[in-house]
Amino acid sequence: MMSVITSRNNLRVRQARLLRQRKAREESGLFLVEGIFPVGEAVAAQDASKIRLESIFYASELLKSDFAWELIRRQASQGTPCFEISAEVFQSIAGKDNPQGILAVARRPTIRLGELNPGAFPWAVAVVAPQDPGNVGTILRTIDAVGASALLLLESSVDPFHPSTVRASMGAIFWHPLVCASFADFAQWAVKHQYHVVGTSAQGDSDYREILRYQPPLILLMGSEREGLTDEQAGICQQTVRLPMRGRTSSLNLAVATGVMLYDISAKSQLS
Amino acid sequence: MMSVITSRNNLRVRQARLLRQRKAREESGLFLVEGIFPVGEAVAAQDASKIRLESIFYASELLKSDFAWELIRRQASQGTPCFEISAEVFQSIAGKDNPQGILAVARRPTIRLGELNPGAFPWAVAVVAPQDPGNVGTILRTIDAVGASALLLLESSVDPFHPSTVRASMGAIFWHPLVCASFADFAQWAVKHQYHVVGTSAQGDSDYREILRYQPPLILLMGSEREGLTDEQAGICQQTVRLPMRGRTSSLNLAVATGVMLYDISAKSQLS
Repeated sequence: MMSVITSRNNLRVRQARLLRQRKAREESGLFLVEGIFPVGEAVAAQDASKIRLESIFYASELLKSDFAWELIRRQASQGTPCFEISAEVFQSIAGKDNPQGILAVARRPTIRLGELNPGAFPWAVAVVAPQDPGNVGTILRTIDAVGASALLLLESSVDPFHPSTVRASMGAIFWHPLVCASFADFAQWAVKHQYHVVGTSAQGDSDYREILRYQPPLILLMGSEREGLTDEQAGICQQTVRLPMRGRTSSLNLAVATGVMLYDISAKSQLS
Repeated sequence: MMSVITSRNNLRVRQARLLRQRKAREESGLFLVEGIFPVGEAVAAQDASKIRLESIFYASELLKSDFAWELIRRQASQGTPCFEISAEVFQSIAGKDNPQGILAVARRPTIRLGELNPGAFPWAVAVVAPQDPGNVGTILRTIDAVGASALLLLESSVDPFHPSTVRASMGAIFWHPLVCASFADFAQWAVKHQYHVVGTSAQGDSDYREILRYQPPLILLMGSEREGLTDEQAGICQQTVRLPMRGRTSSLNLAVATGVMLYDISAKSQLS
């Protein structure tokens, strides 16, 4: 039996803590998964060969879930390194107060734009340069809920493996391809595969309620939180739609706008 | 001309900093408004007699906006106390990195359930015990966008004047009534005013796409992030609807689910 790690300076602990930083995540190809439900989803995704877990850290003093203990037991028996650490050391890695006492280090899957095609991915979402990690995770959660298939992050986006993205995605990040690409490569790829690109913009040509039917294969293109779609970006769309704005606010939260559009597309197509 | 406050221990600075805490906000009836756009909206709402500003703090070293400087000049001339503070002192009050150099202290409006009625508020949203301040602010932003009128927070909710709520609302918090009430009082009030209460729940009776028309006056009732609506809460609804869930995720983010429902209600009614 291994002893409990009680030092914040333990090498493995330091490596895990470093994964709060984007640079360390990108250099190592690893990211953090925090909490009972997310680790459970990560294990399920590993069983489905979607991702790979490198290690699990847990603190007995904090972990009160039989489900979580069973996860650890099973992972340990399958050869995943599981490290018991003290509550204080756990808190030094954890991103928020009152952690549940379990976290995993997982390897980020690498999927390239060229691997996505309309046969396997009939509809997906592309967002230009989102900056809020919570928004990206929430969009992944909605993609999963509506039965869409992938998220494309165009240009300089927040790191999709930011701990807040992982948390907000409620596990969806393990199940759906995440691709980072330049806008130019995206535009070329969409043409090549004959995707219909539907852009959402305050200056969209049609009120979304006027659209009677959406044709797959389809990409929903959303602009960034601050700028929305530029004219040039809207220019590659087969269709641009707008959500009516009746108050003082000139825009919706990015994840809300994406959610309204995804449910509308789902209701007006044979996509799901 | 008043001198620049350079001490973090200045009484006014300490009072403003304390407003990051719920207890201090509730005891004083005051809250913080941070950033150029939010302070601009607060000033506009004050001009429309929606709220009252108590004071403005600004840091010349940080504030790079002519619009903001004009706001300060005009507020000072109207008698609002405006205090110049050093960048370091500003940072000690501010909630996030890279603050824009302007914040206001505003008095929270107090509106009671009894003041809301279908004539003035034909449709509104009620949420049971939301815990995430960002969700509450995002829902307010969507309420404004669709032309709904008020937000009711039932049972033990996060403080709606939390700085993250104010920020996420993009100013909508100044323009729409926010009422806290017990579920029992809410249920009684809805009956008295003959509001149609439409609940959203994973166990809802109808898929939301089956609903052809919504009748005002209407309250959209949403459950908490963790629990959704209980059977008892769903029991007071004239109608319960569900949003289809096709993936592994069993629920949507609360603000996304509220947004999808609000746009659907808006499209299927004469409410806006």
